Amino acid sequence: MNDSEQPMQISEAGEVGIVEYQDFVSAQPFQFESGGTIPELTLRYETYGHLNAAKDNAVLICHALTGNHHAAGVYSMDERKQGWWNFMIGPGKPIDTSKYFVICSNVLGGCSGSTGPESTHPGTGKRYNQDFPKLTVGDMVKAQVLLIDHLGIDQLHCVIGGSMGGMQTMQWATAFPDRVGSYIALACCARHHAQAIAFNDTGRQAIISDPAWMQGDYPDGEQPAQGLSVARMMAHITYLSEAGMEARFGRKRRNQEAHEHFENFDVEFEVESYLRYQGQAFVSRFDANTYLCLTKALDRFDLYGESGALDETLQSVTAPGLVVGFTSDWLYPPQGNRDLVEALLRLGKDASYVELEMDAGHDSFLLCSPKLDALIRCFLARK
Amino acid sequence: MNDSEQPMQISEAGEVGIVEYQDFVSAQPFQFESGGTIPELTLRYETYGHLNAAKDNAVLICHALTGNHHAAGVYSMDERKQGWWNFMIGPGKPIDTSKYFVICSNVLGGCSGSTGPESTHPGTGKRYNQDFPKLTVGDMVKAQVLLIDHLGIDQLHCVIGGSMGGMQTMQWATAFPDRVGSYIALACCARHHAQAIAFNDTGRQAIISDPAWMQGDYPDGEQPAQGLSVARMMAHITYLSEAGMEARFGRKRRNQEAHEHFENFDVEFEVESYLRYQGQAFVSRFDANTYLCLTKALDRFDLYGESGALDETLQSVTAPGLVVGFTSDWLYPPQGNRDLVEALLRLGKDASYVELEMDAGHDSFLLCSPKLDALIRCFLARK
Repeated sequence: MNDSEQPMQISEAGEVGIVEYQDFVSAQPFQFESGGTIPELTLRYETYGHLNAAKDNAVLICHALTGNHHAAGVYSMDERKQGWWNFMIGPGKPIDTSKYFVICSNVLGGCSGSTGPESTHPGTGKRYNQDFPKLTVGDMVKAQVLLIDHLGIDQLHCVIGGSMGGMQTMQWATAFPDRVGSYIALACCARHHAQAIAFNDTGRQAIISDPAWMQGDYPDGEQPAQGLSVARMMAHITYLSEAGMEARFGRKRRNQEAHEHFENFDVEFEVESYLRYQGQAFVSRFDANTYLCLTKALDRFDLYGESGALDETLQSVTAPGLVVGFTSDWLYPPQGNRDLVEALLRLGKDASYVELEMDAGHDSFLLCSPKLDALIRCFLARK
Repeated sequence: MNDSEQPMQISEAGEVGIVEYQDFVSAQPFQFESGGTIPELTLRYETYGHLNAAKDNAVLICHALTGNHHAAGVYSMDERKQGWWNFMIGPGKPIDTSKYFVICSNVLGGCSGSTGPESTHPGTGKRYNQDFPKLTVGDMVKAQVLLIDHLGIDQLHCVIGGSMGGMQTMQWATAFPDRVGSYIALACCARHHAQAIAFNDTGRQAIISDPAWMQGDYPDGEQPAQGLSVARMMAHITYLSEAGMEARFGRKRRNQEAHEHFENFDVEFEVESYLRYQGQAFVSRFDANTYLCLTKALDRFDLYGESGALDETLQSVTAPGLVVGFTSDWLYPPQGNRDLVEALLRLGKDASYVELEMDAGHDSFLLCSPKLDALIRCFLARK
């Protein structure tokens, strides 16, 4: 959920380099779990590396709430901004593109090219906005299955994702066990606890109480920018950790004048400047109706199911799995990750759990670390 | 910061019963640390119990951000809602009104009767709104000193407060050591860490981005209600704890239909209903400009001072003190409380620290618990 703005080292070995996205279009009506349908769907995706003849070396990356299909590389040599998991994907990197065919698609319901609330309904010629069907993580994965079918892949070597991507990963493992060779879920949980729902609902209230939301019918090029920005500022705090923020920002002042003049609204502290920037930058790249749609899908996700028994839902899993929690993640705390693996182990499944000590909070999975590097590299290579 | 809605047991021993507030008016100009002045100030306050002849049995209660002077009792026999610390104050209670003369005033800058942004400037006849001088915790305490002078009290037996009230307490102990016989700071800190500033700034952005804020010039009877409500919802989450919310709400559904129909905006979960109610209720009792003013005072509070040395600021403390942290408080975590006492002990001061294991988060100090009861009762009785 952080934007990585590292300098591009395009000449070095290990970079996927320039990439292009593709659009997969399914011209068939798609039915959502909620009962709604759309007449056709597009998934925008990128691939890195090559699918082998046996078509058994594909690794599917599932992105988090505000991520997208652009997981690695750059779109041009001038671009300094790389895909969101660039350090993880490339020749010789943990998800090694000299071995694996790596696929990452923008989720159904997303706003980066896949069909979502921001897309135009082909029948009406108008944006879906709030007419976009209510979405679940199950729907996201069902749409990804169409893409994998289209690519001619029977079984993915591995499905990997963090946060909302971890939920998709667990959904793949439980709902489509035959299609999953192995899986890695990072900073994940079987369902949101009350606090996570509370933060999401507060963010949704910030958006829908912005008059520019217009019941979701804001026109192209406009947005409930203030509400979306506030929602993002708040959410962004939950992606970090108290210790991480303290180490990075503490009480450093951005604006000594604001301090000396006791200004109440100008930026005074560095952390205010950082967060306000995050809020504004988010508005320029993300759609408010999409944010509403996806956060609700997250809140609804519940691997415990109506029976309340996690062990029942996970019974269908056949692939070996690795779950990685992060000590400083208070949005999806380690215990939620442990719960998944404990249930899998109770069921006699092949599952491992690692808890990494990192102070970057929930976003730790988006940061380069030698331990995470080795874990993913070695788990993918497991026979 | 929680509203207590316990049934009133007025007939039982131990209740202060019906109370009235009073207004202390200082007709002198009051100068703020920021340099601003107001021509006169009012502090609304309540007292419980009787001041003895020696005038040495007064206990000052300092309230938290959204608290007020109504700490105990009721305003009429019909009223079920008691003062915010009613379980703590009364004959035979920990802050025993048969022994102590208890005072609680709405802070300077508050919106419950004391002079603040919502008050009318006597010169212009208009509300101060954003013309109210920039405020510090030091200003709040300086105004309370005027009230204590007015009551003829040389030295308070004890100053007690939690959260923002704890900051006032520490300010009393350091800035007016001669006036403080002892002090108890609960769920406190010497200064905000980055995360606390981040949450406050996000709340302020929610308010000032609401068009109804009108640069602070909203008229009487109007409010940037949506922004203030969102700020409160978010802040309220920070006053609780993940475990406490999970125990109370979990994923309990308020509205099974919203669940079955995949509604995105109706309340679905109990926790959403609770928080939205908290947001709306807050708007009816609190003023947005006041919220901006007070949260900024909190962010500015810094006992480390410009030198960055807590030990330097605390050098002036002479009274014995008790600091109480709460294990589940992640807004003002235990370590911030410990830091205060460690510095006091390094300075050879008489200071104690207790860390109570409670799962109610930051708001734990507002909840009745036998341990907190005994701690306060016995510390007040200490010879």
